[in-house]
Amino acid sequence: MRPVAVIGTGKTQFGAFPDRTLRSLAVEAGRACLENAQVASSRVEAFFLGNFAGPSFTGQNHLAPYVGSALGVTGVPATRVEAACASGGSAFFHAFSSVAAGLYDLVLVIGVEKMTSQTTPRVAEILAGAGDLAGEMKAGATFPSLFAMIARRHMYQYGTRREDLAAVAVKNHANGAKSPYAHMRKVITLAQALAGKPVAEPLTVYDCSLISDGAAAVLLAPAGLASEFTARPVIVAGIAQTSDCVALDEKEDITTFPAVKRAAEKAYRMAGAGPADIEFAELHDCFTIAEIIALEDLGFVKPGEGGPYSSAGCTALTGPKPVNASGGLKAKGHPVGATGVAQICDVVAQIRGEAGELQLPRHSLGLAQNLGGSGATAVVTVLRAT
Amino acid sequence: MRPVAVIGTGKTQFGAFPDRTLRSLAVEAGRACLENAQVASSRVEAFFLGNFAGPSFTGQNHLAPYVGSALGVTGVPATRVEAACASGGSAFFHAFSSVAAGLYDLVLVIGVEKMTSQTTPRVAEILAGAGDLAGEMKAGATFPSLFAMIARRHMYQYGTRREDLAAVAVKNHANGAKSPYAHMRKVITLAQALAGKPVAEPLTVYDCSLISDGAAAVLLAPAGLASEFTARPVIVAGIAQTSDCVALDEKEDITTFPAVKRAAEKAYRMAGAGPADIEFAELHDCFTIAEIIALEDLGFVKPGEGGPYSSAGCTALTGPKPVNASGGLKAKGHPVGATGVAQICDVVAQIRGEAGELQLPRHSLGLAQNLGGSGATAVVTVLRAT
Repeated sequence: MRPVAVIGTGKTQFGAFPDRTLRSLAVEAGRACLENAQVASSRVEAFFLGNFAGPSFTGQNHLAPYVGSALGVTGVPATRVEAACASGGSAFFHAFSSVAAGLYDLVLVIGVEKMTSQTTPRVAEILAGAGDLAGEMKAGATFPSLFAMIARRHMYQYGTRREDLAAVAVKNHANGAKSPYAHMRKVITLAQALAGKPVAEPLTVYDCSLISDGAAAVLLAPAGLASEFTARPVIVAGIAQTSDCVALDEKEDITTFPAVKRAAEKAYRMAGAGPADIEFAELHDCFTIAEIIALEDLGFVKPGEGGPYSSAGCTALTGPKPVNASGGLKAKGHPVGATGVAQICDVVAQIRGEAGELQLPRHSLGLAQNLGGSGATAVVTVLRAT
Repeated sequence: MRPVAVIGTGKTQFGAFPDRTLRSLAVEAGRACLENAQVASSRVEAFFLGNFAGPSFTGQNHLAPYVGSALGVTGVPATRVEAACASGGSAFFHAFSSVAAGLYDLVLVIGVEKMTSQTTPRVAEILAGAGDLAGEMKAGATFPSLFAMIARRHMYQYGTRREDLAAVAVKNHANGAKSPYAHMRKVITLAQALAGKPVAEPLTVYDCSLISDGAAAVLLAPAGLASEFTARPVIVAGIAQTSDCVALDEKEDITTFPAVKRAAEKAYRMAGAGPADIEFAELHDCFTIAEIIALEDLGFVKPGEGGPYSSAGCTALTGPKPVNASGGLKAKGHPVGATGVAQICDVVAQIRGEAGELQLPRHSLGLAQNLGGSGATAVVTVLRAT
């Protein structure tokens, strides 16, 4: 295994873009990424596309060569990877693995989703496919209701409060308001978050991430070659993808995601770093409770302490452990397949000192955590400055 | 790169199984494979699932952990790979690469598709997603009509005859009739094939592969460890996945698939073997013309000679270069995501001498060729006896 670096990134804005196709978004991000690294598309040796449900949202399948050929990436392995909301993270994981193992030098990863062309009920139906359709979903669950159950249990078990959930929303909205890439750029107050329209109690609209269109891209190279392309390569210090059962009712304890814990352990070991060393993180806040649980599963705090930690402002831009400086899925938006790749772009932007108004003071070791469904897939990545 | 061996295989029957779910088929194949190799599911270090359109056919997405957890494969990377009709081949390619590169020792690949629960028009709509939906498909094409155009051009350019296409169908039906796994076990005559109901002229129903349900699985290990598991490991001597544009109208010459040629060149180079050395092959006969073109693209014959070669019986069980002894997609069936993995199982069965009534006399070096859409993805694998 040789060290691997991110040598380029590219993102589209996240939002609702009725006039854009899935392919045009993916190509925009891919082109921006190749330009960022000053690499011609003909030099790309393998291409991984993270996409959750393009065929269901748009009808178009066979998406990797469909996007790749429009970018000038042909004649090489072009593969779509699907792992629900962790599709982007999984594509990045496999791209990393292939470079680390010496299979290829220059590997492009794009994550993309085009969701807003469908009605909200149809979007909910498509998203339900990331859960157990014949089980929990047939019984009436939706993703908001699954995470509402998770939140209720966390409240019961640890005394987590509605205010703690709302604090996550307030912070992520505040961060997103400063990001030119964010879908929702709107500051909210704690009172507003608490008075939000209920979606699945205790979760309100302010606890739920957005239905978005968007794409993000990353170019990987062996660290030894990185200086040919950029003065600011970012090292993939640790990474792991793991899996668990899909249905929530098959889990022993719904207040924790074992796949995240296991992926974090592996990624920390590989990076030679622990949770205390991580300076900032992009976490998978598909719902506010998910950010709180991620803080616990990643070892940033003990089980049950994620709520108070969030309410105390510890994860704010000015706190000791800034989380989702980008605005997170909550405010940046959550074009499913793009999310895991966008998280990498956002961590890389911080490490490179290119995060503009959102630039954090300590930014040499960051983490990204991407979750699929209610925890059946998890990808955790540790990135560090060279 | 270390040598990699197939140490176990498993297949379900292919057919129309209204009472079976996608998951139960995948689990049946996976379990048969693990039993074949005498490996406990807990020992599997990574899992790749090849599936084209499970979410569109069944609603269920996030399929890798959904299948993996039902098999007892959790806590490891579980990833679904989609590359249209080459989804299975692509999953196998990435699994191979990960073992060859030393990332994992025991890697499970399952290919699966559950198609028959949808009406034929809906199936056609879902399959159209493997082409360019906003281009050729919007203009009225379907996959049968795209391959009809390919056939017409091949006829015009090389003098290929309807009888040559029919000869492929007659052979594959004859082989499939002898296979306990085949969806269609029905011998047909040349006259019947020629008089088939037209689908998209010159293609009749006998020129088109089947809409099927089914799954296939393969377990890979480093060749150095293979003898721990089986007395008959089969070596993956060469393999490559490549890509091309998706839309047929973007291609320069529609009588050849450059992705197949390039993948074959790479796989041959890696195997240190050429087309003349290959003793038998499983080729992607989604339509009869595709088998004829594959013979040419793989270098078994010169461009334009695939038709006469087939009519002369050269690809029959008793010919010098048996092709699709399994019955091929034509008679075995074509559960899209399963196909590429089933081809590997069928080549391995021949090499191991376990092909029963279909056992070929020369069976130490075989090839599998898996095609996505009208040539945007190709995977070519060369397998040899130890």
